[in-house]
Amino acid sequence: LKQEEAETVLEFRPIRYRPMSVRGALKEMKKLSSLMVDLAYSSVLYRDRDLAEGVLELGDTADHLSYLLLMNASLVARDKRDAEQIAGILKAASSIHKMAGAAKDIAMVELQGLSLHPSVQEAFKKVEERLVRTTIQPGSILDGRRIGDLKLEVSIGVDIIAVRRGKTWHVAPRVDFKLAKGDIVHARGSDVGVGLFDRLGRGELKEVP
Amino acid sequence: LKQEEAETVLEFRPIRYRPMSVRGALKEMKKLSSLMVDLAYSSVLYRDRDLAEGVLELGDTADHLSYLLLMNASLVARDKRDAEQIAGILKAASSIHKMAGAAKDIAMVELQGLSLHPSVQEAFKKVEERLVRTTIQPGSILDGRRIGDLKLEVSIGVDIIAVRRGKTWHVAPRVDFKLAKGDIVHARGSDVGVGLFDRLGRGELKEVP
Repeated sequence: LKQEEAETVLEFRPIRYRPMSVRGALKEMKKLSSLMVDLAYSSVLYRDRDLAEGVLELGDTADHLSYLLLMNASLVARDKRDAEQIAGILKAASSIHKMAGAAKDIAMVELQGLSLHPSVQEAFKKVEERLVRTTIQPGSILDGRRIGDLKLEVSIGVDIIAVRRGKTWHVAPRVDFKLAKGDIVHARGSDVGVGLFDRLGRGELKEVP
Repeated sequence: LKQEEAETVLEFRPIRYRPMSVRGALKEMKKLSSLMVDLAYSSVLYRDRDLAEGVLELGDTADHLSYLLLMNASLVARDKRDAEQIAGILKAASSIHKMAGAAKDIAMVELQGLSLHPSVQEAFKKVEERLVRTTIQPGSILDGRRIGDLKLEVSIGVDIIAVRRGKTWHVAPRVDFKLAKGDIVHARGSDVGVGLFDRLGRGELKEVP
């Protein structure tokens, strides 16, 4: 290795083994990669560089998780049957990881300023009409409410996937996360649902239907 | 090239240029890859080999479309500004194509019989609870109805993404597609919506809420 190459490699923190459930890691990776895909499309649709950067950070988390899964899975197999099952899990994990990679690529479209052409916006809008970004206005009934208490999933079929408050991103916020005016909320759901959610955020609609 | 390699290459049909709108091709690719991801997850969730094979076929269509897009895009640029915009479209297309590749990978998990481990099922089920597969029973109100007339998207937030009738797959069926008893219908939507849709298909629910 040449000196410069060695130095570049040193910028990456080595990933150390830590015990974790292979099953849990796979579930977490799936959740993370689906979220990354949604947020990546949103970053292009709303020309949101911060969100695109957030997707890249989530990508680092996905990479980390993927290594931990490989390490833990490789310690599990004791016989041929175990090995066959582990192969399935590793193949599933690698395909999920590929999806996370595609999401990072989409975020790069935004970061590299390549999303200017209307065709790019249009292609993403066409299918991803179910994504919405709403800023909670003063007077909105969402201000001060816990996500779980709003029961948006049941009433209007909408899921909050990320909240930006100031400089902080809350990705996949928990049910006890309390929304506040000024929050920029990314959500997904049915056509009708995301429309209703947007009106709730703007304060135009005064109760959850 | 060695002789055997040349023969292998001959198995692929050459893709010939045909004029098409770059914008249209990008939209179509986006639609196709999102559909492939949904159907790939469904193929693992429902252990459905036919569906997994269908995903691979859709992947061929996506590959073909991707080449046509490259060909047409390369003819469009006349000046530096055009070239910059085309770069954006090509980057977006390649990330979308990567997503289609990840979907094919997931379908391979099923085809290679690697989906047996409960962790794999569980990981996909956890997030993709919004996918449903229903067989239309005799007496179901869906039997004989056109998809567009049912207005499922508006009423219960459900989208029909593919219908299998006998040996034929109808992927992303049009609004004038008439459902019939025996159809195996793949749909996606909100938690509540897909539950209602399943009950409509089974004939347990006699009208669209």
